[in-house]
Amino acid sequence: MHIAELDTPSLVIDLDIMERNLRRVADYTKAHGLRLRPHTKTHKVPAVGRKQLDSGAVGLTVAKVGEAEVMLGANPPDLLLAYPVFGHSKLERLMEVAKKTQVTVALDNLEAAKELSDAAKAAKVEIGVLAEVDAGLNRVGVSPGPELMELARGLCSLPNLRFEGIDFYPGHIRDTAERGMEQIGKLSELVQCMLDDFRRDGIEVRVVSGGSTPSLFQSHQVKGVTEIRPGTYVYNDVNTVASGACTFEDCAVSILVTVVSTARPHQIIVDGGSKTFSSDTAAPPSVHGRVVEAPECAFYRENEEHGYVDITDARRGFHVGDRLHIIPSHVCVAVNLHEYVYGKRGEQVEAVWKVEGRGKLQ
Amino acid sequence: MHIAELDTPSLVIDLDIMERNLRRVADYTKAHGLRLRPHTKTHKVPAVGRKQLDSGAVGLTVAKVGEAEVMLGANPPDLLLAYPVFGHSKLERLMEVAKKTQVTVALDNLEAAKELSDAAKAAKVEIGVLAEVDAGLNRVGVSPGPELMELARGLCSLPNLRFEGIDFYPGHIRDTAERGMEQIGKLSELVQCMLDDFRRDGIEVRVVSGGSTPSLFQSHQVKGVTEIRPGTYVYNDVNTVASGACTFEDCAVSILVTVVSTARPHQIIVDGGSKTFSSDTAAPPSVHGRVVEAPECAFYRENEEHGYVDITDARRGFHVGDRLHIIPSHVCVAVNLHEYVYGKRGEQVEAVWKVEGRGKLQ
Repeated sequence: MHIAELDTPSLVIDLDIMERNLRRVADYTKAHGLRLRPHTKTHKVPAVGRKQLDSGAVGLTVAKVGEAEVMLGANPPDLLLAYPVFGHSKLERLMEVAKKTQVTVALDNLEAAKELSDAAKAAKVEIGVLAEVDAGLNRVGVSPGPELMELARGLCSLPNLRFEGIDFYPGHIRDTAERGMEQIGKLSELVQCMLDDFRRDGIEVRVVSGGSTPSLFQSHQVKGVTEIRPGTYVYNDVNTVASGACTFEDCAVSILVTVVSTARPHQIIVDGGSKTFSSDTAAPPSVHGRVVEAPECAFYRENEEHGYVDITDARRGFHVGDRLHIIPSHVCVAVNLHEYVYGKRGEQVEAVWKVEGRGKLQ
Repeated sequence: MHIAELDTPSLVIDLDIMERNLRRVADYTKAHGLRLRPHTKTHKVPAVGRKQLDSGAVGLTVAKVGEAEVMLGANPPDLLLAYPVFGHSKLERLMEVAKKTQVTVALDNLEAAKELSDAAKAAKVEIGVLAEVDAGLNRVGVSPGPELMELARGLCSLPNLRFEGIDFYPGHIRDTAERGMEQIGKLSELVQCMLDDFRRDGIEVRVVSGGSTPSLFQSHQVKGVTEIRPGTYVYNDVNTVASGACTFEDCAVSILVTVVSTARPHQIIVDGGSKTFSSDTAAPPSVHGRVVEAPECAFYRENEEHGYVDITDARRGFHVGDRLHIIPSHVCVAVNLHEYVYGKRGEQVEAVWKVEGRGKLQ
């Protein structure tokens, strides 16, 4: 199928760019002796997860049990559930996943760990566990120091759990500008302190799992880290460019839209809004995406099905029916709004992928 | 099924409240001689569309052709596509819908109207058309005055189109406080001016379609309006409460979540973030929802699967595993993230509705 045959809005992936992104990160992690366990929340497509594995990832990361079930379709050697799973129904489903592939769970409390241990015992499986540490984001995770050691000792003592090490999500490091580099330095010191604590307690730490896309290529500077879990790097987006981790030439994703109204002065309306792109913005400036054919125009506002593009500074004209490509500001939430994504090479659509993990919230 | 058996996150609709919301608006429109054509973008469920029709709506409104196809499941007497449809593929699909029910389209330009006319002629159907007017939102629609009259004359002249009148979306009227009432007064004058223009030109206007949820109960004050198209009123949300159009007792929707982490001080994490609630906020204050069991706590931040609730002011304790109901700030985009919604009466789940219109972006 030629790309001109796609109706709009459609989320399109440039396969050449995606494959280059996969290779670059695989090469980087290999060069620095890091294990790559990509977070699949960005694409939610088993076929893309498989490509990540084929290009050098050692396993895959998911946020929800429903995503783990879907990502079994990638036939992964292991799955990391980087989320504090809780509740009988979810644990039962997770045990079914664990009968098919190796499962590791990141946890920050012993109540959840005990439930997990009971479920694993009943299902006669062994589950890997990581102690979740707060490395500065202030979201989940215990504090490094006594809290972490208490959690780790608890995890080590529970039957059918295999203590693997620690994980953290350095989501507070948004870029690699001066402040970002300072935070990376602090993170490195923090990891060393934690590893010292574990050595003193005689607890073996095989895994130190960190790494998000914005600071991806600085991961080797955080001494002690053994693996990283970037997600966005597979497609990239306006926010990734803003973080300094890639350029617009590395953005594999765009949403193909049609101009549906030019009725108001200095403005065009395209047929995608917050139900197509999400409401997330890239800052600065606060935009919902970058118009590839007219980057001088600001996609400054959305309603649910309307995208407002300010064409005051446009160096071209626009007509109803014109098709434009817009790189979303935040690709992970944009992909999650689409039933299908279309993989193109040049002008040909080579792949139609169902976003199988979309809406798998439980 | 008892509500305790629902896993989280789940979007739950209180059927008693929903039915009261439907009745209230049906009664209001009946009392004022207004026709009610609800926008189904809020629920995207044919069974709920059917309930709106059964409680007095004269037809249904949709934004996309894909939503029109889905909403045929409600067996509506007519469908209004309140969106500037464009392109061969969409028009072909719309003509198939028009063979099954009466279809009206709102348009703001003659290029799109000519395409629609050609498609209707080829399919041997007649399509109703409304001239879309900008009433102050500055989104789509021509300006009242000469622009509108030129569009209307063009619409009247095209074969297989039946000119019905005008429509506008008063989305700039966000509340019924002083400024909102001033805007309603201005809108009323504007409608009168437009109707005068039509009378002078001898063009009959059978339909003047306006009305959104925030100013719903002031619709009768806009003289000349014949029908309204509110969407959110069926479920309501924090933003509707902020607009003054309802109270929290009228919010039929909540998202059932579980506390998954209490590891950080003064904060709990629930198992829903921007992929469960959307990133939309209610202002003021800027929150993603209202915690029913602890309205004194602010749901102030989200990541994709994490909701951050500040419990500094909490009058209760929280533990991992606690279940909470959170009313979303913007229900239309929240519903669009869920595969299913659960209709409960008291503590019993009476209905499981697939959100069939979810992701029907084309």
